[in-house]
Amino acid sequence: MSADASRDEVAREIRRHDLLSIPVVDERNRLLGIVTVDDVLDAIVDAQTRRVQRYGGVEALERSYLDTSFGTMIRKRAGWLSVLFLSEMLTASAMQHFEGELERAVMLTLFIPLIMSSGGNSGSQATSLIIRALALGQLRLRDWWRVALRELPAGLTLGVILGCVGVARIAIWQMLGFYDYGSHWMLIGLTVGLGLVGIVTFGSLAGSMLPFALQRLNFDPASASAPFVATLVDVTGLVIYFSIALVILLGTLL
Amino acid sequence: MSADASRDEVAREIRRHDLLSIPVVDERNRLLGIVTVDDVLDAIVDAQTRRVQRYGGVEALERSYLDTSFGTMIRKRAGWLSVLFLSEMLTASAMQHFEGELERAVMLTLFIPLIMSSGGNSGSQATSLIIRALALGQLRLRDWWRVALRELPAGLTLGVILGCVGVARIAIWQMLGFYDYGSHWMLIGLTVGLGLVGIVTFGSLAGSMLPFALQRLNFDPASASAPFVATLVDVTGLVIYFSIALVILLGTLL
Repeated sequence: MSADASRDEVAREIRRHDLLSIPVVDERNRLLGIVTVDDVLDAIVDAQTRRVQRYGGVEALERSYLDTSFGTMIRKRAGWLSVLFLSEMLTASAMQHFEGELERAVMLTLFIPLIMSSGGNSGSQATSLIIRALALGQLRLRDWWRVALRELPAGLTLGVILGCVGVARIAIWQMLGFYDYGSHWMLIGLTVGLGLVGIVTFGSLAGSMLPFALQRLNFDPASASAPFVATLVDVTGLVIYFSIALVILLGTLL
Repeated sequence: MSADASRDEVAREIRRHDLLSIPVVDERNRLLGIVTVDDVLDAIVDAQTRRVQRYGGVEALERSYLDTSFGTMIRKRAGWLSVLFLSEMLTASAMQHFEGELERAVMLTLFIPLIMSSGGNSGSQATSLIIRALALGQLRLRDWWRVALRELPAGLTLGVILGCVGVARIAIWQMLGFYDYGSHWMLIGLTVGLGLVGIVTFGSLAGSMLPFALQRLNFDPASASAPFVATLVDVTGLVIYFSIALVILLGTLL
C-alpha cells in the first residue's frame, strides 16, 4: 500500500476517536513508536500538498514554490507535460483518420474545442469527487460498480443539459443570422447535441473509473490528474464526435 | 477574509508550534473559546475536501459521494459545467472568425486539440502550484510579480521542449511516409512549434496569475479550478495559433 494510503488510515483513526497520539506496534504487538497528532497534522498537510500538485499534473515539489530552483521546476513539470503531449498526439492521428470528412464539412471543426473540453471538464469533476471519497475511506475498491451505476445516469443527464444548450446556441445563431451553418444546420445541431451527450457520459464514466483502476494497479488514485483525465477523454471524444457525424450527416454533408 | 483562509492561519500557528490547542480572543483579549488540535484536524480535512472538489470544477458536496442524492449531485456539477460550456462557446466563435483560413488549410485543424490541451495542461500545473503555495502561506499577494518573472521563462522553456517534440513528430511522420503534410510541411511544422511555445508560455503565465487575481478580488484562490484555467487558455490559445499560422503561412497555404 502506498505511503499516502497508510498515512490516511492513521489519520482516520486519530480523527475518528479524537486521539492525541496512536501507538505503532509490529505483528507481535511490540511497541515500535508513537505517532502524535502534530505529526499527523504535518503529514496530512504535506500529503495534501503533493496531491494538489499531482492533481494539477506536476510531480510534487520538495520545497516551496519560490525555494525550488528553476531547473528542478522545469524537470518536475516537463515530465508529465511531455507524457501528456505524446498521448495527446493521438488526437492528431484521430483527426487524420477523419481528414476526408473534415475537408467535406469544415463546419464540424468549429465545435471540436467546445466538445472536447466538455468531456474533459465532466471527467475532471468525476475524478476529483472519487479521488477524495477514496482518500477519506468513503469509497472502497469494491464500490466501483456502485459508482459506475451513478455516473452513467449522471453523465447522461449532464450531457443532455449541455447538449440542449449547444443545440440552442446553434439554432439561435442561425435564426438571428449571426452565422450561417448552411441548409443542413439542423443536422449539424443534432450532431453537436448528440456528440455532447456521448462525450459527457463517457467523460463522467471514464473520469470516475480511472482512480479505481489506478488503485487496483497499486498506484495512488490521486495520480489521476485533471490533465490525465482530459487527455484520456480527448482522443475518445473525437472518435465519438466523428462517428456520430458520420451516422447523421452521411448522404448530406458527408 | 474567507473562512478557509482564517482556518488556514489557525492551522499554521498550531502546526508551527506543535500546539495541542489555541485560545481564541476578541480585540480586548477576552477569551472567546479554545480551538483544539482535533478540531483543526477535522477542519483541515473538510477544507481539503472542498478544495479538491472545487479544483475539479465541482461545487463542494456536503455529504459523502454515495450519500449525496442524484438531484443534488447533478445540481452541484451542472452549474460549473454550464458556465464553462458557455465560456468555451467562445472557441466556436474564434474558429468561425478563422473559417476562411480553416477551409484553405484543413491541415491546421489536425493540431488544434494537441495545441489547446498543451496550453490547458501547462496552465493547470501552474495553477495547482500557486494555489497550494498561497494556501500554505509560502506566497502572498504581493509576490505576484516574482511568480510572473519565474513563470515567463519556465513557460518559454516548457513551450520550447514541447515545440521541439511537436516539430519532430511532424518531420518523422513526413519523412517515414506515415502522413503527407504536403510540400509546405516544414512551414506547418514551424507553425505548430511556435504555436506551442506561445500557448504553453501563455498557459503558464495565465494559470499562475489566476489564483492571485481571484485572491485580490476576495474570492478563494482555489476557485481557479483546472477546468476554469483550461477554458481561459483554450480561447486565447486558438487565437495565438491562428495568428501565428497567418504570419507564417500567408502567401503559401493561406
